[in-house]
Amino acid sequence: MKNIILASTSTVHGGTYLDYILPTLQEHFKHANNILFIPFARPGGITHDDYTNIVATAFKKINKTVTGLHTYPNPTEAITQAEAIFTGGGNTFVLTNQLYVNNLITPLQNAVKNGTPYLGTSAGSNICGLTIKTTNDMPIVYPPSFNALALMPFNINPHYLDPDTNSKHMGETRETRIKEFHFYNTPPVVGLREGSWLEVKGNQITLMGNLHARIFEYNKTPYEVAPKTNLSQLK
Amino acid sequence: MKNIILASTSTVHGGTYLDYILPTLQEHFKHANNILFIPFARPGGITHDDYTNIVATAFKKINKTVTGLHTYPNPTEAITQAEAIFTGGGNTFVLTNQLYVNNLITPLQNAVKNGTPYLGTSAGSNICGLTIKTTNDMPIVYPPSFNALALMPFNINPHYLDPDTNSKHMGETRETRIKEFHFYNTPPVVGLREGSWLEVKGNQITLMGNLHARIFEYNKTPYEVAPKTNLSQLK
Repeated sequence: MKNIILASTSTVHGGTYLDYILPTLQEHFKHANNILFIPFARPGGITHDDYTNIVATAFKKINKTVTGLHTYPNPTEAITQAEAIFTGGGNTFVLTNQLYVNNLITPLQNAVKNGTPYLGTSAGSNICGLTIKTTNDMPIVYPPSFNALALMPFNINPHYLDPDTNSKHMGETRETRIKEFHFYNTPPVVGLREGSWLEVKGNQITLMGNLHARIFEYNKTPYEVAPKTNLSQLK
Repeated sequence: MKNIILASTSTVHGGTYLDYILPTLQEHFKHANNILFIPFARPGGITHDDYTNIVATAFKKINKTVTGLHTYPNPTEAITQAEAIFTGGGNTFVLTNQLYVNNLITPLQNAVKNGTPYLGTSAGSNICGLTIKTTNDMPIVYPPSFNALALMPFNINPHYLDPDTNSKHMGETRETRIKEFHFYNTPPVVGLREGSWLEVKGNQITLMGNLHARIFEYNKTPYEVAPKTNLSQLK
């Protein structure tokens, strides 16, 4: 049974890494002592070791140890045997590329489908959708495919941003970008605001956190859904 | 001899389509009566006809006619025979994909290298860099490659945005994104602010407009350059 938390962000404004969601993670990871961390999105180009250390510091507060996937000679085996998995944020193209070149897409899909508790933040959430075509990231590397883990029947847009009505910037708003996605693709997109997350228990998908999410369906006017909304029918 | 204008945007805040740059375009296109328009980036999903009509309305003010590349049975021939070429903005992934699937990359490179006056705005400027890896656009389609026309020895980041120090948004700033590009790529990136453009005459590349541009070189601190700066040595 799938047991997944997909968060918009690791860090809310004014907070420290993962602090806003640690009580939830204590419950989510209650049967795990050690969490396998996938550092491949490499935010800001820090080393995998440095990134893993940041994560380990946060999880120490709820008495979990953390090991980086990059330290295992056989990463497929590490994923298959993990008690719990966390994929951190950074650049979605870099992360996706690393998962493909290391042949980790299928092992990761299988582990999560078989019930290994999973946490994603930002890029780590993005890759659980059908494709990475609704990422906000810059395409700094060319992955073999935009197809993602497809653990959810829709796409996610993390760090969802409402239009800034005071802006003089002429680039596209986030809403415009997602509407353009729907000129070429039909799956729904969940715009997750900072501090929101999706909780997946088997086939039940629920919006969590204090904020509404914005839902974009093909050929429909975008709409807001409140916290605790069941999104299981969205596909 | 190359004769190119690469603009950050088609429309500055409070203005109409291309109006801020029309006097420059009158000189740039002085030997052309008709401009071949490449509408493939399709902003907002409008039809190629509708997009071409917007462009035709703007160019009528300087007595140019405009024809859309999509109306030609043989687009390669249309590019080769064009008096002048304009590629409009929209989504860079969509544009790049269309150029590849229609086998137009090489014809377009050759036409511009042979001296056909070229104008790009936004996505139409992006594709003149080495790759599209510094686009701001959402990757709504998967192109066969991120390699672009390579008419310039660097990459362009149009609609360059300075960090918003008041923002509570935790997504990456533009500067952070471009720094991440340099963890995986070495070419320089020119951050072109709204209302700025690059003028290319042969091998001479000059920053134009009223604003500074921000230059990102591999392993260097980013720096500002003033209007009229010669960027020919940047590679």
